[in-house]
Amino acid sequence: MTTRIVELRQGILKKNDELARVLRDRYTQAGVLVLNLVSSPGSGKTAFLERTLRELTTAGFKAAALVGDLETDNDAKRLAASGAPVRQINTHGTCHLDAEMIARHLDEWTERPLAGLDFLFIENVGNLVCPSSYDLGERVRVALLSVTEGEDKPLKYPTMFNSADAAVITKIDLAIPCEFQRDEAIKNIHEIRPSIEIFETSSKSGAGFEPWLAFLKQERSKR
Amino acid sequence: MTTRIVELRQGILKKNDELARVLRDRYTQAGVLVLNLVSSPGSGKTAFLERTLRELTTAGFKAAALVGDLETDNDAKRLAASGAPVRQINTHGTCHLDAEMIARHLDEWTERPLAGLDFLFIENVGNLVCPSSYDLGERVRVALLSVTEGEDKPLKYPTMFNSADAAVITKIDLAIPCEFQRDEAIKNIHEIRPSIEIFETSSKSGAGFEPWLAFLKQERSKR
Repeated sequence: MTTRIVELRQGILKKNDELARVLRDRYTQAGVLVLNLVSSPGSGKTAFLERTLRELTTAGFKAAALVGDLETDNDAKRLAASGAPVRQINTHGTCHLDAEMIARHLDEWTERPLAGLDFLFIENVGNLVCPSSYDLGERVRVALLSVTEGEDKPLKYPTMFNSADAAVITKIDLAIPCEFQRDEAIKNIHEIRPSIEIFETSSKSGAGFEPWLAFLKQERSKR
Repeated sequence: MTTRIVELRQGILKKNDELARVLRDRYTQAGVLVLNLVSSPGSGKTAFLERTLRELTTAGFKAAALVGDLETDNDAKRLAASGAPVRQINTHGTCHLDAEMIARHLDEWTERPLAGLDFLFIENVGNLVCPSSYDLGERVRVALLSVTEGEDKPLKYPTMFNSADAAVITKIDLAIPCEFQRDEAIKNIHEIRPSIEIFETSSKSGAGFEPWLAFLKQERSKR
């Protein structure tokens, strides 16, 4: 059975890669920068994205979000508070988003075509393992790690951090009560992914958002 | 391809269930209570288990642990500090433990046969989705949720909480800085799994361990 599983898995991932390539072309033609946010459940993706959407909208950019969860539309409701257009994807048990789900929801999302958007953020299902294998056509994959989770997570979930283009440490306002070892966390991220850019942020206070937003604008300008 | 995936997945889970049944008989014959600990990455499974092992050992029980991670033996090293026998399982990319891995590691673990053990704890890979489908033959599945993760996690990851026999809220020493809404979290757990027993704990201070240990001893006595 193992051989059949490996073959089938390769087939699924190959098909996903092909669909992701089509999506990537579509994003490029529309001139939208697409980012895929991945992390554990509860690491603060939604709060981070809500503040990012609000700050970008205030600065005059057009940003939107697709948000994945097994169940509930809690996150879409929270993100909609930013004023940006948001669409919930419920995977009903599937542990990751894939390119087919993204393509389908983009097609069905009549009130928000890609044209005219500057940024599209995809908030993946909270899971530090499975989403790493599924390309969604994004140009930038962002791995988030909260100070509450422990500094060794990059070493224990290496594929996720190794496939990321940027890393964000969240909830730095909780660093002291959590006894967060900043230098060790950064050393561990760089051990898995040398020279990756790391942003240290608090979605509550806004700390660290200035360099993060500058990074987004800079990536956006690389057309 | 979807039909083939569904069929293959059913085949894998059926085979796992058969192996889990064999394991369950083996645990029963050995007179050992086996628990499967599941949660997000970083919710404090290892610290919780380390304190549990230490307290049980001090009270004269024989307890051991199998601990699953994609990579590293960090957790086995941390748990070994409790004095209990511990064995690391590295899944090398697989997002969950399965019954075959448990059977293989039990067979290879010559210095710690099941006979003579009171408790065997299995610490699963940190993942709120995939481990829920894989029975490891355990009698008690314990879902952990830390106060840092957000109160809505049971609603967003219902299968994990629905398949659990007990729930543990961890890191309650951080409840105030995290603005944890205790009543909402408990309501959400009970919405998914009515009347499940919930323990509120701090592995740092030891708060809540008394009812947790009493529960373990009571479950142990149900032979």
